[in-house]
Amino acid sequence: MATLKDIGLAAAINLLSAFAFLVAFAILRLQPINDRVYFPKWYNKGVRSSPTRSGTFVKKFVNLDCKTYLRFLNWMPDALKMPESELIDHVGLDSVVYIRIYLLGLKVLIPLAVLAFVVLVPVNWTGHTLERIEDLTFSDIDKLSISNVPSGSKRLYAHTVMFYVFTLWTCYVLHEEYKTITAMRLRFLASENRRPDQFSVLVRNIPPDPDESVSEHVEHFFCVNHPDHYLTHQVVYNANKLAEFVAKKKKLQNWLTYYKNKCERTTTKPTTKTGLWGLWGTEVDAIDYYTAEIEKFTEQENKERERVINDPKCIIPAAFVSFKSRWGAAVCAQTQQASNPTIWLTEWAPEPCDIFWNNLSIPYVDLTIRKLLMAVAFFFLTFFFMIPIAFVQSLANIEGIQKVLPFLKPLIDMESVKSIIQGFLPGIALKIFLSVLPSILMTMSKIEGFTSLSSLERRSAGKYYLFILVNVFIGNIITGTALQQLKSFLNQPPTEIPKIIGVSVPMKATFFITYIMVDGWAGIAAEILRLVPLVIFHLKNTFLVKTDQDRDEAMDPGYLKFSTSEPQIQFYFLLGFVYAAVTPILLPFIIVFFIFSYMVFRHQVINVYDQIYESGAAFWPDVHRRFIMNIVVSQLLMMGLLSTKNADISTPLLIPLPILTIWFHIYCKGRFQSAFVTFPLQDAMVKDTLERATEPNLNLRSYIKDAYVHPVFKASELERPPVIDEEENHPLLRFANRNQLSGCDVRSKLQRVIHFAEKDKIRTVS
Amino acid sequence: MATLKDIGLAAAINLLSAFAFLVAFAILRLQPINDRVYFPKWYNKGVRSSPTRSGTFVKKFVNLDCKTYLRFLNWMPDALKMPESELIDHVGLDSVVYIRIYLLGLKVLIPLAVLAFVVLVPVNWTGHTLERIEDLTFSDIDKLSISNVPSGSKRLYAHTVMFYVFTLWTCYVLHEEYKTITAMRLRFLASENRRPDQFSVLVRNIPPDPDESVSEHVEHFFCVNHPDHYLTHQVVYNANKLAEFVAKKKKLQNWLTYYKNKCERTTTKPTTKTGLWGLWGTEVDAIDYYTAEIEKFTEQENKERERVINDPKCIIPAAFVSFKSRWGAAVCAQTQQASNPTIWLTEWAPEPCDIFWNNLSIPYVDLTIRKLLMAVAFFFLTFFFMIPIAFVQSLANIEGIQKVLPFLKPLIDMESVKSIIQGFLPGIALKIFLSVLPSILMTMSKIEGFTSLSSLERRSAGKYYLFILVNVFIGNIITGTALQQLKSFLNQPPTEIPKIIGVSVPMKATFFITYIMVDGWAGIAAEILRLVPLVIFHLKNTFLVKTDQDRDEAMDPGYLKFSTSEPQIQFYFLLGFVYAAVTPILLPFIIVFFIFSYMVFRHQVINVYDQIYESGAAFWPDVHRRFIMNIVVSQLLMMGLLSTKNADISTPLLIPLPILTIWFHIYCKGRFQSAFVTFPLQDAMVKDTLERATEPNLNLRSYIKDAYVHPVFKASELERPPVIDEEENHPLLRFANRNQLSGCDVRSKLQRVIHFAEKDKIRTVS
Repeated sequence: MATLKDIGLAAAINLLSAFAFLVAFAILRLQPINDRVYFPKWYNKGVRSSPTRSGTFVKKFVNLDCKTYLRFLNWMPDALKMPESELIDHVGLDSVVYIRIYLLGLKVLIPLAVLAFVVLVPVNWTGHTLERIEDLTFSDIDKLSISNVPSGSKRLYAHTVMFYVFTLWTCYVLHEEYKTITAMRLRFLASENRRPDQFSVLVRNIPPDPDESVSEHVEHFFCVNHPDHYLTHQVVYNANKLAEFVAKKKKLQNWLTYYKNKCERTTTKPTTKTGLWGLWGTEVDAIDYYTAEIEKFTEQENKERERVINDPKCIIPAAFVSFKSRWGAAVCAQTQQASNPTIWLTEWAPEPCDIFWNNLSIPYVDLTIRKLLMAVAFFFLTFFFMIPIAFVQSLANIEGIQKVLPFLKPLIDMESVKSIIQGFLPGIALKIFLSVLPSILMTMSKIEGFTSLSSLERRSAGKYYLFILVNVFIGNIITGTALQQLKSFLNQPPTEIPKIIGVSVPMKATFFITYIMVDGWAGIAAEILRLVPLVIFHLKNTFLVKTDQDRDEAMDPGYLKFSTSEPQIQFYFLLGFVYAAVTPILLPFIIVFFIFSYMVFRHQVINVYDQIYESGAAFWPDVHRRFIMNIVVSQLLMMGLLSTKNADISTPLLIPLPILTIWFHIYCKGRFQSAFVTFPLQDAMVKDTLERATEPNLNLRSYIKDAYVHPVFKASELERPPVIDEEENHPLLRFANRNQLSGCDVRSKLQRVIHFAEKDKIRTVS
Repeated sequence: MATLKDIGLAAAINLLSAFAFLVAFAILRLQPINDRVYFPKWYNKGVRSSPTRSGTFVKKFVNLDCKTYLRFLNWMPDALKMPESELIDHVGLDSVVYIRIYLLGLKVLIPLAVLAFVVLVPVNWTGHTLERIEDLTFSDIDKLSISNVPSGSKRLYAHTVMFYVFTLWTCYVLHEEYKTITAMRLRFLASENRRPDQFSVLVRNIPPDPDESVSEHVEHFFCVNHPDHYLTHQVVYNANKLAEFVAKKKKLQNWLTYYKNKCERTTTKPTTKTGLWGLWGTEVDAIDYYTAEIEKFTEQENKERERVINDPKCIIPAAFVSFKSRWGAAVCAQTQQASNPTIWLTEWAPEPCDIFWNNLSIPYVDLTIRKLLMAVAFFFLTFFFMIPIAFVQSLANIEGIQKVLPFLKPLIDMESVKSIIQGFLPGIALKIFLSVLPSILMTMSKIEGFTSLSSLERRSAGKYYLFILVNVFIGNIITGTALQQLKSFLNQPPTEIPKIIGVSVPMKATFFITYIMVDGWAGIAAEILRLVPLVIFHLKNTFLVKTDQDRDEAMDPGYLKFSTSEPQIQFYFLLGFVYAAVTPILLPFIIVFFIFSYMVFRHQVINVYDQIYESGAAFWPDVHRRFIMNIVVSQLLMMGLLSTKNADISTPLLIPLPILTIWFHIYCKGRFQSAFVTFPLQDAMVKDTLERATEPNLNLRSYIKDAYVHPVFKASELERPPVIDEEENHPLLRFANRNQLSGCDVRSKLQRVIHFAEKDKIRTVS
């Protein structure tokens, strides 16, 4: 067991390394040459341009002004200065709400820490249990924890009462936060400028029709069923292969630029090999080779483009349907269209840049099967990932290393080395395992068939959180005592499981302190340093960049990776909540992490990240749900822990807590969640009416026309497929625009309505 | 343990009693005097009138035609003759689909029984385990059950494979049935005549407004947010007290009629006492007394009626809003109106006769608290109800009775008495307990705040099913071995629970056979005899009836009690599915029950029951879900049972079954459920367009005007409150009807829209 000295040393090392990172960052960011690495957001906004224009040659690359170095920590107050409303304008609501999660953690944990130190630490410290037990090595940390309270002691009431206070406070803060975020979202949506997705609905699973093309079928269906509101639509092409070609061509063009630059500098003609990665095969002139290759690809690409546009098989049974008003779109997105609920599925169209094009054409039955398969796969991934972790951790203690590598014994016996190994190794082993995971989880979410990048990220975050909960949290608490958790859990009574985990919780406090420092503190410091983008930018800058536009492309601002960072916050919050009543000494470490993260991410969001999409904080219900899950998990563990302490009376006192917490969640869900999934008709009506009053002559059709074209078509100069334009003059559309219908029209419309309905009904029944 | 002889005797007794019931029914139903008891449906339809008009005096009361007695079982083929489409016209979809549940049970269980008898019975019979164990009394029934197969035998593979076959067959039948019912519902809805609820939406939680009355607020809100579709609305009065007065007055009037009739017959003036139930107090002339009382009450009633109509506090924040088209109503019912999801809640209006008026005004927060409280209450009800049952059952065995009542010993020792006690007592004790339950559960559902009778019934059925599952099924299987189930379950590993229950399942086969006969067979036979309505009708007929209208009112046709009968079917199905692989001999008893029930209920539905509401089989998703639950429960029990049999290989083979079954449920839910909760826009459009073509001059407003007035107002001759009529000439309404707006109008409308939205937004945020 690590002693207080070990922890102190590890903390010092980690603080030093974090400080080193910060100093490195402070120096690097002041160099003009790195300006595009540390302030790309401003370049993308067009507010900032390369500071290398004026001054001497040296000044272009190195900052020689000593005064600026003295104020090297200035970025911190700078990051905090920008007011929230301005921040929303600058970076969007997603990022602002994301950094508020850290603030929320602080709002919850700081009062918890104060209370715990004022009330629980004295109660624990004066418990005097550990001192009385002989043959037990314990550290001062343990003396502050609940382990120091004797079994069956009346002191445990203090922990029970404090746990009620903690839960009530947390729920109060969560409720206020949910209310605030909801109001922020509604305000944000109301103040948003006109955007194509406000008028559009994504329609999936369009049933095949033997007589009509997809485009005609969509048009007729919506003309008939939304006669007063339908405006236009955009079919979706299966352009995945074309997108591949475009990406490949771009890569070749990069190589061509690289060799051209090289040629200019060295004056010798560069050569390359035709085989794999340019390492094997016959040697050829590089520039000629790549020029020829690009020409070949352009030809192929054009052919493919022709094929996609002209082959009706390339049109997938999905479409973006646009309406004349937000009201019309809100109605269509929230209602069921056909009596068969697996066809004509409508949902709000994601932002054009948020669409995940590959998943638009999955039929309903496939979707359910994919979800089943991924659920099973995720179960196996979660529970069989444990075996390697347990193996590494069994190595990562002093005795294990001595046994496997006996020749290291003299080194390990040195006190300082021993401390380092004990402080670092378990955390690092885990970290390596976790770094390969997010991409696997993202792939699994993609297989599940979500249609927007934002929902993919949300889904992956959910998976990642569960994974961390099972493997990092529970896995680390009880691996030592029970290797095959799953099997042992199945053979334990449900009341035993919280006991088994709960009783191990106090023992693992030192491990988690180390983990927080290695994973949390150092990780965040590394985040701000941006070492990888720094290196890559300079490589690109040296070899590829010729024009300013090239330099803009060489910047890699990155974006907030919600799918991995949010579960991490949740995990730290879980640690904080669990240990608040068990070993309060852990809380300051987490609070430092939250403060530090808040500042770093606020800085990054302002100066660096460039978000791909803007979902208007649509992830908040997920965040809230996971907070609640954390609370319930820690309540169960607390019940288990107390019952092993023979606190027979105070354990049942805790039973109402999880019930009330879950009820609180249900209440919040009903009260706030719909603001994140639906768009109320009233709000739609307000915006519509406003717009109609301020811009009575707006041509919405031309505004929306190209919004939902696949990006490969947008990038090129090619015209849009002719099918789309034809609809402008289509008789049915004109017909739909009219409000008054003559008797003849009614009859023909009636025939059409019934015709559709019966067709679909046959499909429903068969 | 009951032997085959006991079972045989019990079966004979039960068959005889059922037969006696049937004969009694056959005779009674042929008597003209009982005609209104056994054929009230036809009277209500106006197709049949009292057969007592013609013929001699005796013939009026007794059927003297001997031939009809010979054909006394004729009602059975008669009941089966009517084709389904005609049946739907005659009794509505609810009843038809309900009796199809019995048919579904037969479709599942008959093939299961055949397979079980062909495959499993020989396997069990030749197991020869029980014979080898000495000191074990066993019956022939046990020899047919899985108990007779040796532990760890390869024969258990047969059971595993057959269980897969059973599940697959059941899921196939369930899927087909869901498809059929969905198609039936859609056809039914499409062919329905115009009904007010097709155009109406129930709006609840209307926010209070300081400047406007509820009626004005509703009107403005919908004029603004559904300008092209809003037609009219009806506010809801809190007329609960008034309804009480009306009911009380009706009762007094009955007594007055009774005494007047008595007076006419006996010529002496009848007297009554003024105290409780006419038993205490001073004696007065009955007719004078009741006339005076009625007058008093009429005055009070009128005063209350005035108050309800004129006091704005009597208007509750709910309203029925009607639209110009089904499309408009479908849109409003399926969308969210305001950004605060707890106000302006819209849902399809129930049929006027389906509304549960008392629950219309419950605010959102109250609803969530009520649901929490009722969930806790239901938990306690379910688990603490067990104690009395266990107590009674411990009495209800021979040894128990001999111990408690030793003087009965000589009587009990007689063989036949012993058999009767063993056959009857446990079932009856349980039955008495259960008969008090449905009304408690219904009250709990009412407290939960559902707004329609149909949803109340569905909710109660769900509760009743869970109660039966825990108390009748699991309770009877393991009470003998573990009294405090809940506590023991909490202290058992989750894998142990199916084992504990599973291992007891084969032993309880005889008990459940008895239960089926007493509860099922005799219960159904009693259902058709209608003893209670028979007696009450004749009492009323003798003392109260004067005119034909009185006689019509004296009929009590009753209705299908979905909340109690459907859980019973589910329970029998569960028994059938569990025992299909364990003790197949149980299946024929259940099949007989299903056939018998099917015929009886078909007869009752055609000739007797008068449904209060018509929900269009909206209960089917619940039925389907419970079938799935039954299957999963029996799969878990089967896994438990097999693992106690040391079938180490075949138990894991069963693990995919529950996962696949749950997935099947999710699939079906996505595929079919929405047909039962939403109304697709396409179907709405078809009906609207049809109607507009066939009846272009329909005045929908006058058609809907009075549909949603509280029944106490309808019954009286009083005019409707003047508030409602005023709206006809309201400027905003006319304004909403216009499609073209002048510039000035747009501005004023804009102001109003924003005004509303901001008001509600303030509410959202605060």
